Amino acid sequence: MATMQRERSATHDLAGAYRAIRRLSEALVAPLSEADATLQSMPDASPAKWHLAHTTWFFETFLLRDHLPGYQLFRGDWPFLFNSYYEAEGQRIARANRGLLSRPTLAEVFDWRAHVDAAMERLLADERHQALVLLGIAHEQQHQELLLTDIKHAFFHNPLGPAMWPQDPVGVAPAQHLGHGGWRDHPGGIVTIGHAGGSFAFDNEGPAHRVLLEPFALAEGLVTKGNWQDFIDDGGYRTASLWLSDGWDWVQRAGIMAPLYWRDGQEFTHAGWQGRDPAAPVTHISYFEADAYAAWAGHRLPTEFEWEALAQGQDPAGGNQLDTAAPPLPTGGAGLFGDCWQFTRSAYLPYPRYHPAAGAVGEYNGKFMAGQWVLKGASCATPRGHSRATYRNFFYPRQRWQFTGLRLAKDL
Amino acid sequence: MATMQRERSATHDLAGAYRAIRRLSEALVAPLSEADATLQSMPDASPAKWHLAHTTWFFETFLLRDHLPGYQLFRGDWPFLFNSYYEAEGQRIARANRGLLSRPTLAEVFDWRAHVDAAMERLLADERHQALVLLGIAHEQQHQELLLTDIKHAFFHNPLGPAMWPQDPVGVAPAQHLGHGGWRDHPGGIVTIGHAGGSFAFDNEGPAHRVLLEPFALAEGLVTKGNWQDFIDDGGYRTASLWLSDGWDWVQRAGIMAPLYWRDGQEFTHAGWQGRDPAAPVTHISYFEADAYAAWAGHRLPTEFEWEALAQGQDPAGGNQLDTAAPPLPTGGAGLFGDCWQFTRSAYLPYPRYHPAAGAVGEYNGKFMAGQWVLKGASCATPRGHSRATYRNFFYPRQRWQFTGLRLAKDL
Amino acid sequence: MATMQRERSATHDLAGAYRAIRRLSEALVAPLSEADATLQSMPDASPAKWHLAHTTWFFETFLLRDHLPGYQLFRGDWPFLFNSYYEAEGQRIARANRGLLSRPTLAEVFDWRAHVDAAMERLLADERHQALVLLGIAHEQQHQELLLTDIKHAFFHNPLGPAMWPQDPVGVAPAQHLGHGGWRDHPGGIVTIGHAGGSFAFDNEGPAHRVLLEPFALAEGLVTKGNWQDFIDDGGYRTASLWLSDGWDWVQRAGIMAPLYWRDGQEFTHAGWQGRDPAAPVTHISYFEADAYAAWAGHRLPTEFEWEALAQGQDPAGGNQLDTAAPPLPTGGAGLFGDCWQFTRSAYLPYPRYHPAAGAVGEYNGKFMAGQWVLKGASCATPRGHSRATYRNFFYPRQRWQFTGLRLAKDL
Amino acid sequence: MATMQRERSATHDLAGAYRAIRRLSEALVAPLSEADATLQSMPDASPAKWHLAHTTWFFETFLLRDHLPGYQLFRGDWPFLFNSYYEAEGQRIARANRGLLSRPTLAEVFDWRAHVDAAMERLLADERHQALVLLGIAHEQQHQELLLTDIKHAFFHNPLGPAMWPQDPVGVAPAQHLGHGGWRDHPGGIVTIGHAGGSFAFDNEGPAHRVLLEPFALAEGLVTKGNWQDFIDDGGYRTASLWLSDGWDWVQRAGIMAPLYWRDGQEFTHAGWQGRDPAAPVTHISYFEADAYAAWAGHRLPTEFEWEALAQGQDPAGGNQLDTAAPPLPTGGAGLFGDCWQFTRSAYLPYPRYHPAAGAVGEYNGKFMAGQWVLKGASCATPRGHSRATYRNFFYPRQRWQFTGLRLAKDL
Repeated sequence: MATMQRERSATHDLAGAYRAIRRLSEALVAPLSEADATLQSMPDASPAKWHLAHTTWFFETFLLRDHLPGYQLFRGDWPFLFNSYYEAEGQRIARANRGLLSRPTLAEVFDWRAHVDAAMERLLADERHQALVLLGIAHEQQHQELLLTDIKHAFFHNPLGPAMWPQDPVGVAPAQHLGHGGWRDHPGGIVTIGHAGGSFAFDNEGPAHRVLLEPFALAEGLVTKGNWQDFIDDGGYRTASLWLSDGWDWVQRAGIMAPLYWRDGQEFTHAGWQGRDPAAPVTHISYFEADAYAAWAGHRLPTEFEWEALAQGQDPAGGNQLDTAAPPLPTGGAGLFGDCWQFTRSAYLPYPRYHPAAGAVGEYNGKFMAGQWVLKGASCATPRGHSRATYRNFFYPRQRWQFTGLRLAKDL
Repeated sequence: MATMQRERSATHDLAGAYRAIRRLSEALVAPLSEADATLQSMPDASPAKWHLAHTTWFFETFLLRDHLPGYQLFRGDWPFLFNSYYEAEGQRIARANRGLLSRPTLAEVFDWRAHVDAAMERLLADERHQALVLLGIAHEQQHQELLLTDIKHAFFHNPLGPAMWPQDPVGVAPAQHLGHGGWRDHPGGIVTIGHAGGSFAFDNEGPAHRVLLEPFALAEGLVTKGNWQDFIDDGGYRTASLWLSDGWDWVQRAGIMAPLYWRDGQEFTHAGWQGRDPAAPVTHISYFEADAYAAWAGHRLPTEFEWEALAQGQDPAGGNQLDTAAPPLPTGGAGLFGDCWQFTRSAYLPYPRYHPAAGAVGEYNGKFMAGQWVLKGASCATPRGHSRATYRNFFYPRQRWQFTGLRLAKDL
Repeated sequence: MATMQRERSATHDLAGAYRAIRRLSEALVAPLSEADATLQSMPDASPAKWHLAHTTWFFETFLLRDHLPGYQLFRGDWPFLFNSYYEAEGQRIARANRGLLSRPTLAEVFDWRAHVDAAMERLLADERHQALVLLGIAHEQQHQELLLTDIKHAFFHNPLGPAMWPQDPVGVAPAQHLGHGGWRDHPGGIVTIGHAGGSFAFDNEGPAHRVLLEPFALAEGLVTKGNWQDFIDDGGYRTASLWLSDGWDWVQRAGIMAPLYWRDGQEFTHAGWQGRDPAAPVTHISYFEADAYAAWAGHRLPTEFEWEALAQGQDPAGGNQLDTAAPPLPTGGAGLFGDCWQFTRSAYLPYPRYHPAAGAVGEYNGKFMAGQWVLKGASCATPRGHSRATYRNFFYPRQRWQFTGLRLAKDL
Repeated sequence: MATMQRERSATHDLAGAYRAIRRLSEALVAPLSEADATLQSMPDASPAKWHLAHTTWFFETFLLRDHLPGYQLFRGDWPFLFNSYYEAEGQRIARANRGLLSRPTLAEVFDWRAHVDAAMERLLADERHQALVLLGIAHEQQHQELLLTDIKHAFFHNPLGPAMWPQDPVGVAPAQHLGHGGWRDHPGGIVTIGHAGGSFAFDNEGPAHRVLLEPFALAEGLVTKGNWQDFIDDGGYRTASLWLSDGWDWVQRAGIMAPLYWRDGQEFTHAGWQGRDPAAPVTHISYFEADAYAAWAGHRLPTEFEWEALAQGQDPAGGNQLDTAAPPLPTGGAGLFGDCWQFTRSAYLPYPRYHPAAGAVGEYNGKFMAGQWVLKGASCATPRGHSRATYRNFFYPRQRWQFTGLRLAKDL
């Protein structure tokens, strides 16, 4: 949960942000049919409609139900359907069964959204709830990114290779290939890591604390699809010595030979099957693959602290991030933010003196601090404005359906 | 595949039957949304839309493609999606992934149906293809029953318990409780079993052949929900000695304690959750359960030959079967047909001198002759006119999502 | 359980048979170390020591405990270890954990055997128990065959390929190749099948009853390793149309490409890795493979009734069966018995009017009558004297670790 | 792999250490039968005989084969059997099949040990190989601890509850209950963590580097069995909010309700089932359980750095560790070492500038740096002299068969 310092910005801005983010979610599903919006291709992923509903449940539960006097739940049996993982909020439908919810319909979910949005107007002006509203907004932004990666995964399983958006031959500029050529050095020493308050952040980003770094350097550019092809051509997926033991098991059992979504010279995108641009950043790789690639390249992944130390001062809203309902596509660019989430070699663990918030929202982050890895930055599917230098994304080392990539590091 | 004796009936009737059965399929999905029609709740089940498409693929492939000169496939990449299990027809989508086909849309599948129906009109008048058309019709009838049982299974997984049709308080008469009270005796001796030709039947129903029976009796009535409750109350699900060894394993591992769809005093139906009528036939039980019940009752299941010997001469179109697009519901009635498929103690095996037809349609039945059990009769979800005394339905001993029940037998 | 007609033969012979069979079990384990005798390579198989103990448990439980006044169990906590599947006899160790029983030691199990044998002497003279003793003897013979096939399976998993016995270059005569050349015809008609009493048989062999057969023929010879190589060379394992649907799934998922124990030109035997004799009967195949082979050969498997009809009058103690503690090896020979168990196309089901015996021994056979297939004859690992024309062996269609083979049949 | 600084101690001492450790391994298996020594109860565990052989393979491969001119492998086909996980050393038997190796016999493995020991005498005097010999010794010590925990796990699965050693009523003093009462404070600041060379250590303990700590305190005592009973009695295993998300899943799916080896008031030990001493340290818990307990107690687990900072200067050879072949038993005592390995909240990751050694021994540690957690200290089954303050043990968060426990920490 967020550190909830009061913001000085007018609540007027908050209401605008609320409305904008709610509209973006709806714009993202505009190209989807009722059936598209109900698809669930694996337990990790959720239907688009479920994302629309779950984000609404979040506002209805933690804002309206808890703080708006007299508010009645839109439907008493829907929380069971749209609670994700909050044990404190009671039982819920098995995660793998979300794709069986053809009812409520998409139209009914839109009705719910309108109902909740109308009621929320009465709370948005009340600055006592600002921190929770900001959490709800950030939460919905996270689900916007998941909605995009989940529907991509579902469409990928349709042999017809459906396109959610038409390809835009103009919009996709040829990627700028930066390769690993340049390095940004850092002298090491004591740096302050984590969020210090004064604005919104998730609870897992704090408390701010000091960390001692050795001198290191971070690559200017992300590893590209062309780099990755070299790794494949050099037998990277068949060379045991490059891999973590669990990674090697996984590669062999699952028959992994390329990033997710690669097929011959093509890759699957929100615009269907498309040719691959070797200069664009590689994405849809697992931690195991990122780590093996770094070993092959003779370098390593950065720690989350190294990455953050260099990101401080950069504009987290820069780079290739999501602005509108249009196909996200990594294109390569300067700066540490955008294009893809970047694996670090840091396990996702609590910062010193971290304590989850009390109550159900305390389940937001802390209980996932086992077995996952920290990713930094922001991807082409991250709503612009959502990320920060202190932001900690996290996934299991086998997961690949996010826009995940890597940036190399080395010791100095 | 069917024994394909030429029918003397005018091809005019065949065309009428074709059109009627095609319309019924479409009427069955009328209450379903685009998302409802895409649901797949387990690998055994298929989406309603898939049934609409697969039955159309059958006509397009085995009739139009193979026999209508110049016919062009409606879409060249759809056979991959809608072939069920015909190895001779090439690769196909993994069975468990049928629920990921949000595309083609329901409307596109309806367009395909119309296109195929129009082309079929040119073949329906040609009596050379009559046997294949009859096979296609019988095939679509089978999928109508599956469509109904599959969507019931999917809706059951939605905690909201959606109703596909409103309950009809008038239509559902109180069930006639026949219990096991009466028995129909049979003196035994040599009987002729199987289909002798002269009209349509599946290939697995023949050849007709002689079987020697010992004297036996068959219960007049089906086992009822009330009888089943007695079995439960008497500890039937907890008494190892009543069960086949594999059945006991299954009951314990899967935690089976009642028929599928039972919850407290209710059961799930196409009209949502409803009270249970103790006088109505029990359904949605597995072979293992049927066998255990028979052991508990001190009787046994009939063989398929015994059942067929007594069914000869009865009207297979009688009893409670599906006439229109309305909720199927077992109600109990006289006669051997209708209400539910009845387990026999006969394994599903080839009859003497049975040979599958040549070509892909030869895969229709023969290759499933291992590990399954024969069921006889017809259920409330079987389109009236589909069944025969010689009809052999078959399922694995753990499967329960069909309208399956039992009628006891005993030795004389 | 056995039909327990009293035998007229002197109980003197029974005692001799008892002692002989007990000694044979012990001779079979003579080449095994303490560790060898504890191995369990899969849940289907059991350690050799466990077989020694379980057969002793059978006599101690159903004879001594139940019928010898004042008998005290050798160890009160051993029945939990050595009960196989008798629910009526209470809880027992999980089947897959039998290989974890390093205690009791082999010597302790031998002590138990001696203790039970001594006590049994007092019962062997009492003809009231003759039927149960005969059952116990037949039971131990079954476990002798299992002991041999189980230890073979365990040794096969040791990359060193241990030999249990030295190869006997003299003992293994070149096999007589009979191929399918000749056929024995049967005119069909009503035959009596099953055991009529008057001597020992398992309960599943009765009651005797009449069965109506169509005219058929059975091959003079068993299918050989050379025949099987032709099947492989002709792509038998890659041709879907030859296989039952479940068999095709199994072949593909498990990567089956040859009988169990084949590797290059060799096969694994109780004497380690040896060259394969193309004229010897093929063994260690599953029902799925046997059925596919028959389809490839243009014939079929016999029913259990056809096989039995032709076996009546033959000497069931003839052919290549187990006489002493020496490596069993299929060599080919005349007659229907010996070399290998022969798959039939009959599912393992109860005969008309079959009822399991009351009490725990009633679990011997009846509860396994689901999902398995009947095999007839006797194998090179079957103790001579154990089999009968009416004998019904049974296995699941995927199991291959027994000496299982096939003899073709055809319609006349 | 070890940092291989040359030791000043005479090679005379090395030879003595070599001999002593080799003798201890053999003494540990003295109470085991041939069958006991072959048991494998799960893939994580290995047979005792396998440990004897694998440690010998290590010396034969990396010392004798690589460095003793003219040395011939004792058996050419044994490395396939006894290589554990060194990909660079080629193929090897599947881990789960180690329990099927009844051959070579225990006596043959002892012969191999003697053969290798004799050959090693020629290398022990050569100080060029000292570092590798020290690695081999430390490696064998690790396997001594595994041998003890693996055989305990195997015996636990025998319902007879075999004792490997008789209980020593004198040897087991009543445990000293220290509880959490006292705390050792640490002021925080920059500390040096990791091994600096100059003596033997594993490669994962280095390089030494600086870490910045916040002020904290570590409990004087280990959490006891009595403390753990309070946790159980307070519903610890049923309270979702105490658990990491993956831990809660595990607890529910696996039905975890107590530490491994607890049953009623007893626990399973190397001396069979024994009463539990509430004052003794709790052991055989998973990371998930340790973390949940700490949450319940209102404290937390220490980081590996905090633990090491306080351990510097303590005698790592102190406390309750393994001296001779006798039953290991946690008894409680002062000092940070001994009794049980203590979970930290640190994921097992490489230290800054860590690089695995070149060649096969480089696989010793580095490739396991994913998904596991660091444990510090030493247990009652750790051969005394093996551990160090810098030592990093590591296990997956579900594993419980080691002597694992916990010591609480808190922020100051």
